[in-house]
Amino acid sequence: MLAIGVDIGGTKIAAGVVDEDGEIIATTTRTTPATDAALIEAAVADAVAELRAGHEVVGVGVGAAGFVGADRRTVNFAANLAWRQHPLAEELEKLTGLPVVVENDANAAGWAEYRFGAATTARHMLMVTVGTGLGGAIVLDGQLVRGSAGFAGEIAHITAVPDGQWCGCGRRGCLEQYTAGTALVRTARRRASAGDARMSPLLQVAGGDRKQIDGPMITRLAQQGDPGAIELIAEIGRWLGMGMASISTLLDPEVIVVGGGVAAAGDLLLGPAREAYAAHLTARNHRPLAPFLPASMGNRAGIVGAADLAR
Amino acid sequence: MLAIGVDIGGTKIAAGVVDEDGEIIATTTRTTPATDAALIEAAVADAVAELRAGHEVVGVGVGAAGFVGADRRTVNFAANLAWRQHPLAEELEKLTGLPVVVENDANAAGWAEYRFGAATTARHMLMVTVGTGLGGAIVLDGQLVRGSAGFAGEIAHITAVPDGQWCGCGRRGCLEQYTAGTALVRTARRRASAGDARMSPLLQVAGGDRKQIDGPMITRLAQQGDPGAIELIAEIGRWLGMGMASISTLLDPEVIVVGGGVAAAGDLLLGPAREAYAAHLTARNHRPLAPFLPASMGNRAGIVGAADLAR
Amino acid sequence: MLAIGVDIGGTKIAAGVVDEDGEIIATTTRTTPATDAALIEAAVADAVAELRAGHEVVGVGVGAAGFVGADRRTVNFAANLAWRQHPLAEELEKLTGLPVVVENDANAAGWAEYRFGAATTARHMLMVTVGTGLGGAIVLDGQLVRGSAGFAGEIAHITAVPDGQWCGCGRRGCLEQYTAGTALVRTARRRASAGDARMSPLLQVAGGDRKQIDGPMITRLAQQGDPGAIELIAEIGRWLGMGMASISTLLDPEVIVVGGGVAAAGDLLLGPAREAYAAHLTARNHRPLAPFLPASMGNRAGIVGAADLAR
Amino acid sequence: MLAIGVDIGGTKIAAGVVDEDGEIIATTTRTTPATDAALIEAAVADAVAELRAGHEVVGVGVGAAGFVGADRRTVNFAANLAWRQHPLAEELEKLTGLPVVVENDANAAGWAEYRFGAATTARHMLMVTVGTGLGGAIVLDGQLVRGSAGFAGEIAHITAVPDGQWCGCGRRGCLEQYTAGTALVRTARRRASAGDARMSPLLQVAGGDRKQIDGPMITRLAQQGDPGAIELIAEIGRWLGMGMASISTLLDPEVIVVGGGVAAAGDLLLGPAREAYAAHLTARNHRPLAPFLPASMGNRAGIVGAADLAR
Repeated sequence: MLAIGVDIGGTKIAAGVVDEDGEIIATTTRTTPATDAALIEAAVADAVAELRAGHEVVGVGVGAAGFVGADRRTVNFAANLAWRQHPLAEELEKLTGLPVVVENDANAAGWAEYRFGAATTARHMLMVTVGTGLGGAIVLDGQLVRGSAGFAGEIAHITAVPDGQWCGCGRRGCLEQYTAGTALVRTARRRASAGDARMSPLLQVAGGDRKQIDGPMITRLAQQGDPGAIELIAEIGRWLGMGMASISTLLDPEVIVVGGGVAAAGDLLLGPAREAYAAHLTARNHRPLAPFLPASMGNRAGIVGAADLAR
Repeated sequence: MLAIGVDIGGTKIAAGVVDEDGEIIATTTRTTPATDAALIEAAVADAVAELRAGHEVVGVGVGAAGFVGADRRTVNFAANLAWRQHPLAEELEKLTGLPVVVENDANAAGWAEYRFGAATTARHMLMVTVGTGLGGAIVLDGQLVRGSAGFAGEIAHITAVPDGQWCGCGRRGCLEQYTAGTALVRTARRRASAGDARMSPLLQVAGGDRKQIDGPMITRLAQQGDPGAIELIAEIGRWLGMGMASISTLLDPEVIVVGGGVAAAGDLLLGPAREAYAAHLTARNHRPLAPFLPASMGNRAGIVGAADLAR
Repeated sequence: MLAIGVDIGGTKIAAGVVDEDGEIIATTTRTTPATDAALIEAAVADAVAELRAGHEVVGVGVGAAGFVGADRRTVNFAANLAWRQHPLAEELEKLTGLPVVVENDANAAGWAEYRFGAATTARHMLMVTVGTGLGGAIVLDGQLVRGSAGFAGEIAHITAVPDGQWCGCGRRGCLEQYTAGTALVRTARRRASAGDARMSPLLQVAGGDRKQIDGPMITRLAQQGDPGAIELIAEIGRWLGMGMASISTLLDPEVIVVGGGVAAAGDLLLGPAREAYAAHLTARNHRPLAPFLPASMGNRAGIVGAADLAR
Repeated sequence: MLAIGVDIGGTKIAAGVVDEDGEIIATTTRTTPATDAALIEAAVADAVAELRAGHEVVGVGVGAAGFVGADRRTVNFAANLAWRQHPLAEELEKLTGLPVVVENDANAAGWAEYRFGAATTARHMLMVTVGTGLGGAIVLDGQLVRGSAGFAGEIAHITAVPDGQWCGCGRRGCLEQYTAGTALVRTARRRASAGDARMSPLLQVAGGDRKQIDGPMITRLAQQGDPGAIELIAEIGRWLGMGMASISTLLDPEVIVVGGGVAAAGDLLLGPAREAYAAHLTARNHRPLAPFLPASMGNRAGIVGAADLAR
């Protein structure tokens, strides 16, 4: 039984035909038509039509950044796209004639890791995506946790530091301000700007312009052994570990899967995260410690997870 | 179909026969025999035998403070009783001949509120018990969340303040150190000890001895309009609201039920909690705000919830 | 004995002849010639020449934003002007033929309040200027505290919140990020952006564009009784009081003088500041509480203080 | 010109004749007569009489724990002794017939380091005593800073963590709760109690009883290379460095002298302190970094400083 998964990103729509083992057997892409809802839907429908030509599919799963209603049919709010209380599933069903399920993109990716990736042996998973921002997905007892109105899993916005760094969400001290790519780069730039000698190698690589410092540059230097870059990633890792410890206190996951661009730093990130997690988890000597596992599905996760949810 | 619920407390074992509507139709109690596991089991079995004499029951549900395994049969660790990896269900089944289910006491109470109390119309509930300490229970999509090893729902030990007040659990800044009866009384005593004039009426009621200040005294004064006592309870309420906002960011509950001794302060506690919750919940203008409801089952919750889980 | 005081600001150079009672008996201004050190000096010399024409003066005092050396002759670093290890006093003495003393502008203004303004009866004064940023001056036992290299009095950059809001200085959680005009406006805009209903009146006055919210707008609304604006200023006041409590723990001042644009809010700012100060000052029931007094010298403080230091 | 210095401790009164070079040429001790003010004064007078027998002295300086008035004659409050607004200098002058100066004991010790010890080449000194608690003394431009009512220099009670650990002073988050012997031991015990494996060697040395863990034990293990003990002292050091950075932002000292029992750990403490200091000091690339120097006067500091202040 095949299904189509669609991952609507800010610049690209990626779609694929996915089999029951989570393998993608055909793919196509479209450019995201800016912020016009109807054009986006047309592009998705077009991609679906192309993929259906060669395969018999039972439905379409769509992953999109934004708050998706608990019914998995409506996008209530998206920061980057034009949707407000938008009946995305209904519109796409009209255009495609196939049953459509909509899911938050981080949830879709987390579901793929749970079903086919790093967490296949677990029943309870916490997935965290450390990219530019911080994304999350929670699976408990085999079910994706969506909450009463679809807002569950927003781990970016639990409070890490009362009265801490302002967040784009209008509140202070959100975890995302301490452990994500943006936090990593901001810390590096601020320290460079303050004349911190440990940032000198990084600043040199950036051609002396601290605004040229970016995440991959920090990761690369860290992997080459630069102490300043290692320290920057370790700090992100410690906050990640502390945040996961608070969440595990609530949810007691079996495994913690870590994906996203910053996770490319591997154990430079995960080592400090594991250590901070152990130090901050309550009752740690009476319980198993959830392992931190690297995500294994890569960019495919969004398509595969969305497709699987459509079956 | 009747079931027996048993609530094993530090000083008292309370048991009752519970019907399918959550009504208790017969009760009995025993004194808790200190820390001897076999004596406790004998006392429970004795209470069960007494209750069975008059009613046909299908099983026994037991609520106990401690970490109960995900199989609901084993108590892995209890702070106040002698259990370590103890097969409580098996032992009680031998003694009673009935099927036995064990559950953490806060979970049992939360389940009672979900099934028969303040949250009967909801599918997703967060229950918080603000007593001497802080207890919690999470129901998502009609299921009690227990986690991979039974440790879920420990809301007392999410980190509220990095490097904050030391907690009995060996870590710093746990939410319980900011919003529970112990925190309430400690704040009052510390401020009285520092000569804070707003604590004068309270100190006077305590006969001038700050060690005599207790929670009910503070609640009583607050209900009489004393500004110092009102401020103390409001502070507890604000931390409660902030903590619940972080948890809601993760779990998106439909309602938040508040029980426990400190909750007797009613809106003096819940008013500031609601306000802080709204101020600290991410995306609050795109989502419904979960109401804070007072628990309605009172002391019966433990027995009723445990019995219902045994059915 | 008359002296000339000069206040070099980012856009304007203001100068005046000041008598021994701190009265300004003649003034003149020049536009600040951007960032060219020689042009700035020529403009200062020109203003001094004009003022000397009608009055016999014994010297020139210059106040400037930046780190001034302990010898009061060199500007070691200025964020907004071109000086780096710049011998400002020497250059101006060459141009004017008068003895010149250089002082940090906040110190000069604080000295004016101490000598002729709000703190004339005290020997130990803490002055804090709550403007766009946060400035400070410390007088102990009648002496302006300058430190071993002229860096003393930087109250803006004591740490208020570990791991808090990033500061332009390259560190986190500086007091200035919590109590200054910039913090006031940022909080208002962030809360407005998050859809906080209490910010609605403010947002309306700003024509619906949160980027139009500024400090005077908030103060005006607060003075008209708007609860949201009052709350914003009170929050700034509480952080001010907490910061001053930490500093008083170190320095035990007799009075605390509060100046700067945000201080125009009067008791809307100072009331919460006094309350937080009392709550956070150690040993407060064994000691006098320093009063918070509004600054009384206004814009003249810079000129008057600089002139007095030159005598 | 000789003077007598007296150090009134909780259990012992130590006195000595001190010459102008800060050398002690004769000493004697008495047991502190508990909490009776008259008995304490008699014991001091008795020690003074003994020392005067062999030496001609010009006055007596007395160091005592507590808040000493700005006139250096009155003890306003002492936590451990019976003094409340007590005219200690006057009483001792009656008994001895010599001029008497009273000073806070930490101030007296700091003065000794400034005059004869680690800071003799500096004009601006910050002294911090890391013992069971945290003491401090500030010398600016050659003058001991006493504040308007004698309360200056209480570095123990600046706020390190808003809403942090409760302090005996009735407030939260005081620096003393993060960097002092009590904090060191408490952290070790709490971590041991939570089953932290890094505390195992320490717990073993303590015979398995975490209440037997004390400061010298931690220092000894750290000096032997135990990673857990090294980490405990480093944490104290980091908080020390952060606290000193905030104070230096205000006062710009030339040197920072570190004394007290915990300072026996040497660079295990001072290394992390220096690093945190550099990381948290504002404008650090535009200014000299004050060195952290070990105190050099040891236990003699109290007597020598008090005597010197009496001259």
